[in-house]
Parts: sequence; C-alpha cells; structure tokens
Amino acid sequence: MNRSVITGSGAEIPAEIVKNTDFINEQFYSDDGKLIPTSNPVIIQKFAKITGIEERRYAPPQSNSSDLAAASAKKAIEDSGVDPETLDLIIVAQNYGDVAYNSVQVDTVPSLASRVKRSLGISNPSCIAFDTLFGCPGWILAIMQADAFFKAGMAKKALVIGTETLSRVIDRHDRDSMIFSDGAGAVVLEYKESESGILSSGALSHTGEETGYLFMGESTHSDYKPGTKFIKMKGRKVYEYALKFVPQAMKECFDKTGMDISELKKIFIHQANEKMDEAIVAGFYKLYGKEVPKDVMPMCIQFLGNSSVATIPTLYDIIRKDQDPDHKLEPGDVILFASVGAGMNINAVCYRY
Amino acid sequence: MNRSVITGSGAEIPAEIVKNTDFINEQFYSDDGKLIPTSNPVIIQKFAKITGIEERRYAPPQSNSSDLAAASAKKAIEDSGVDPETLDLIIVAQNYGDVAYNSVQVDTVPSLASRVKRSLGISNPSCIAFDTLFGCPGWILAIMQADAFFKAGMAKKALVIGTETLSRVIDRHDRDSMIFSDGAGAVVLEYKESESGILSSGALSHTGEETGYLFMGESTHSDYKPGTKFIKMKGRKVYEYALKFVPQAMKECFDKTGMDISELKKIFIHQANEKMDEAIVAGFYKLYGKEVPKDVMPMCIQFLGNSSVATIPTLYDIIRKDQDPDHKLEPGDVILFASVGAGMNINAVCYRY
Repeated sequence: MNRSVITGSGAEIPAEIVKNTDFINEQFYSDDGKLIPTSNPVIIQKFAKITGIEERRYAPPQSNSSDLAAASAKKAIEDSGVDPETLDLIIVAQNYGDVAYNSVQVDTVPSLASRVKRSLGISNPSCIAFDTLFGCPGWILAIMQADAFFKAGMAKKALVIGTETLSRVIDRHDRDSMIFSDGAGAVVLEYKESESGILSSGALSHTGEETGYLFMGESTHSDYKPGTKFIKMKGRKVYEYALKFVPQAMKECFDKTGMDISELKKIFIHQANEKMDEAIVAGFYKLYGKEVPKDVMPMCIQFLGNSSVATIPTLYDIIRKDQDPDHKLEPGDVILFASVGAGMNINAVCYRY
Repeated sequence: MNRSVITGSGAEIPAEIVKNTDFINEQFYSDDGKLIPTSNPVIIQKFAKITGIEERRYAPPQSNSSDLAAASAKKAIEDSGVDPETLDLIIVAQNYGDVAYNSVQVDTVPSLASRVKRSLGISNPSCIAFDTLFGCPGWILAIMQADAFFKAGMAKKALVIGTETLSRVIDRHDRDSMIFSDGAGAVVLEYKESESGILSSGALSHTGEETGYLFMGESTHSDYKPGTKFIKMKGRKVYEYALKFVPQAMKECFDKTGMDISELKKIFIHQANEKMDEAIVAGFYKLYGKEVPKDVMPMCIQFLGNSSVATIPTLYDIIRKDQDPDHKLEPGDVILFASVGAGMNINAVCYRY
C-alpha cells in the first residue's frame, strides 16, 4: 500500500557553541523580580543535572531562522535525491518567524516557507509553500499535514522543515534562557508503495490554563524596554502536564498499529529536558507494564539544547546518518516520534524505517 | 458523495470606523524618503478611486487578532449549530499573530488557534488547534487543509478562521497604510454526504523576486525607531503579478469541476483593491471569451478595506446572511473563492452552495 516515506533528511546545526559556563556572569532573577541568591555555579550545575544540557548552538548574526531552514532543506533534498522541482509542498514548522539579530520583531511576511523555496531556487509554481504554528510539536504536525495531503490525493512529495532561533527571543535574566537553542531539521516525505512509512499518528491540544504554560511575557528584570516580551515557561507546570498526558498519547498512537510494544525500536522525543523525557518514556513503558529498554531513546540535548520544532528532525538526521555510535537504525525498525509544547499540544507519529 | 460543506459562518467587524478623511493630516513619504508633494486631498481622492476604499475598521485597543478570531468563531458555531466539543480542527489563518496596541512585537506563542480554543471554552483535547501562514490566501489554504484532513479520514469537522489586525503593522507615512484594516471571519466546515460542498481547489506559490512584493520593511521617514519594520507593498508589482497569474489559476480550479462558465454564480475574491479585483475577474471571463456578468462579484472593500485573510470569510458571511441587497445566494449556486497575496501565493476553491 501507499505510505508516506521519509526519503531524505538534513539538519543545520549552527557552528557557535555556547557552553553552560558562558552564562556564569549573567544575573538571574526570579518570577517575582528578585535577584536569585544562589550562586551561578550552583544554578548552572542544577540546571545541567535536570535538563541534561551542557551546550547549545546559536545562529550567526547574519542568519535568520529561514536561512537555517533552507540549509537543512538543501541537505535533505540532496540526501533524498528528489528533484526539488517535483516537490508539491514545502511546510515550515516554526513559532517565531525570522527575528533579526538584536531585534525583538518577528518577521513572518512572506512566510518562511516562501523564503526557503526562494533560497532553494525552486521555480515550479505548483510547489506550495506555507508555515505551520503548533508550538514545539509543529514539525510532527507538519508531517501529519503532508500525510493528509497525500492521502487526500492533493500532493505526493513534500519537504517538511522545523526551524527556530530561540536565542533571539530569550530573556537573559531568566534561568530558562539556558534551555533554548537555534537550529533546523528537514525531511523529504514521499507518498509511494512501500513497507516503510507512516503507520499511525495522533495529536492533542489542551487549551485551558495550559495556554499559559509556555507564552510570551516580560522580563522581571528592568533593563529591557517595558513591554518587550520573551519566551517564558512555567517549567513545573509543563513537566507535570507532560507526565500526565504524553505517555498515554504515545500509547494511543502506537496501539493504532496493532503491534506489540516489544517491536518498538526507538523513540525520537522532543528534546526539551532530559529528566522530563526520561520520565515520559518510563511512563509510556509503564502503561505496558514494562521497563524502559536500553538504548530506546537517542538524545542530542546535551550538546544541542532545545531548538523547539528543530529537535526531532535534527536528532533523526543524526541517527539516520550514523553519527551516534550508540544508536543504529535498520530497515524495518519501528520508531515513534513524539512531541509536547506550547499550546499546550502533544502529538506522535509511528513510523516503519 | 461526501463533501466538505460550510454549515455556518461568522464575522467580527470592529466598530471603529476610520474614514479616508481621517488621514488628511498624515505626512506621506515616497519610497526614496521624500515628502510627497501632492496635497493630501488629491492623494486620498486618487487612492479611493483606485482601491475603492472609503472606510476601514480598526480593532479596539484591548482586542488582539485572536480576540477578533474568537468573536467571529462564536458566531460561526452558533450559525452552524455544531456542538463545539465535536470539532476536530481549529485552523487560524493569520500573518502577524497578536500585536498588542502600541507594540511592534508579534506574539504567536501559544498559537492564535490555541487562544481561540480557550476563548471558546472547548475542552475536548482531540480538537487540534493550529495556525497557518500563507499571506492573504491563508484562509483559503486553511479550507484546503481541512478538506485534506477530511478526505484523509483524519477529521470530520473544522472551524476555519481568518484574522488580522493590520492597523498594528502599518507605517503611517506610507500611503499604502490607508489600504489595511482589521477583522476576522470564520466558517464551520463539515464532511458529509451532500450535493453542496467543495467541488475543486488549487494553489500556486511564486517565490522568485515575488517574495519581495509584500514584505516587512522600514519606514522611509525618520520618526520611527531604526530597525522597526512595517507591512510594505510594491503595489504596481502586486497588480501586474495578480493580473498575470490569478485569472488562469481561477480558470484551472473552475475547469476541474467540468462545468460551463455560465453556471458560475458568484466570485468571492480577496478584497485587496477594487480596480485590481475587477481586472482579475475581467481577465478570468476573457479566458472563456465572455464579458463579466452583472453582479458576479460582491465587494465589501468600500467600507471594510483590506483585512488580509479575513476579507473572504467576512464577505461570504455578509452575503450568506442577506446583508447586501444586490447579492443573494440560492441553494445549488456554484461559487468561486479566490485569493492572492504575500508569498506570492494564489489559490482558489470552487464550491456548491
């Protein structure tokens, strides 16, 4: 039968490495606007222990999110071997558009997908380019959108990108600023007769008080212009939310395949926080009465931080291209993509490699 | 057969009327930064003659784009009679997110669709809420996305909204600022056995030099903070582009239905510029060797200006609810939705009422 198959992947990992120690001279303030009395070495040590993050990447000043997206897309197209002029869709999952270096303005007109298509030099007007906003789970949603267009007979080949420059929207007086990173990841998705491809998918949106867990808010410290907003997170709320809903959502997606849990080889989960991801995966296996298998969850958060929509396609590209000695993918392997983020939104896609 | 049927519509038209004469004391500058020597009465008269715009609406200071969207959505849900808890999708087409009054920052986290879902009080987590960015044709694209999800068996009921507060992103020293307006329009779309519904659709993206026809750029006058960007348009380029490509795109969409052009009753075209819209429709009929039929193109640009993604669902709601004595819709009428805008993008949907 016809399935949506990933035929190529690519990632753009910016060269600039920002280490945890680079935050040593920042002044961190609490939510109530007071200087946090804990020393920075202790703050940073605690941060690293919980999140697993040692380093993150920042885009060079001359590059915007759409530039990272185009760079990742070029690699995915090359990897796939697809003629870019035959693409029917370019979907860019993003949340902050292009934010120029040292600007607070989000620029989304024209869409980032339009800019990517221009950078790729694709002239076919039937290649439709649009952006999707769904918080960190945006890239998986964009995969589901391409899958829907394929199944509806409205497209056959898609370029699906996740890109973000979170370094441009962080409040340096907020400890959470250390979480966020820049990057882009892309895949080429084709609808064709294949044993491999998307097996199932699912999504959830919780929009009660959850809309306030990840949001744009002002700094509690006074050296920014009043009214300037930054990415803000209620970390404890996000953690509790994720633990409560993500394992079950992953199970519902996986169970649609009718397979036994022992057949699942890898989980590519949004790299938001290592402890949270480990707890989600443990919760997922607990629903099957199982322990977490060894090496089921590849991670890149240690050296890439949380680049929102870019984390999963970037991680997938790393593993697909054998750049992590602890994780290999073999043809036929069943894998699960899963994400959680602003909205709050959750989604998952089960895929046969 | 099953089709995607509009079962309800709604529009939020802000109460504040801004007349052309309200611009009489503005200082308009040309693209090269010089004060335009023509007197404002002449500038405004010429503007009105070309665009057809006499008035536009601005959202009240306390309302953002997502608030307008939620207000239009409530009306569409009420009109449809659908239980909002049974909606599978909420898609918000937008281009500038929420821009608070007197701010230049675009706020898109969480997505506007999340905020709308919260405002509507919908608690069903299986109702997925996301935003779509595709320039002014975003609302028609969102309709196509819902249609794709329906045909793929991934959803059955959708709320599709177009919303924008362009008054928050205009450069008051740019004559084009007079074009733009605020508003929101929404429809409920359901997949069911019906003679009415979507008959065909199509889209194009041109992303060569066309990416520069509608963009974010700085004012040529010096009283804004350097680096602040506003909506900018190369009007002549947009006009020529639209005339060159939109009529053919509309024809390709309509011809997919296999019907004769005489069967087309109404065209709901993006309200960007009256002269341009008239020329597009004339070009469309010329492709069939026909004159433009009387009363084929309802317009609301005269009193609502160009509210981007909101213009078509707003116009549709006006006609559907018999608020324009010159235009009536009867069951079975075949109509065409068509749009053109930033990207540059074009799309069209043919629909049986």
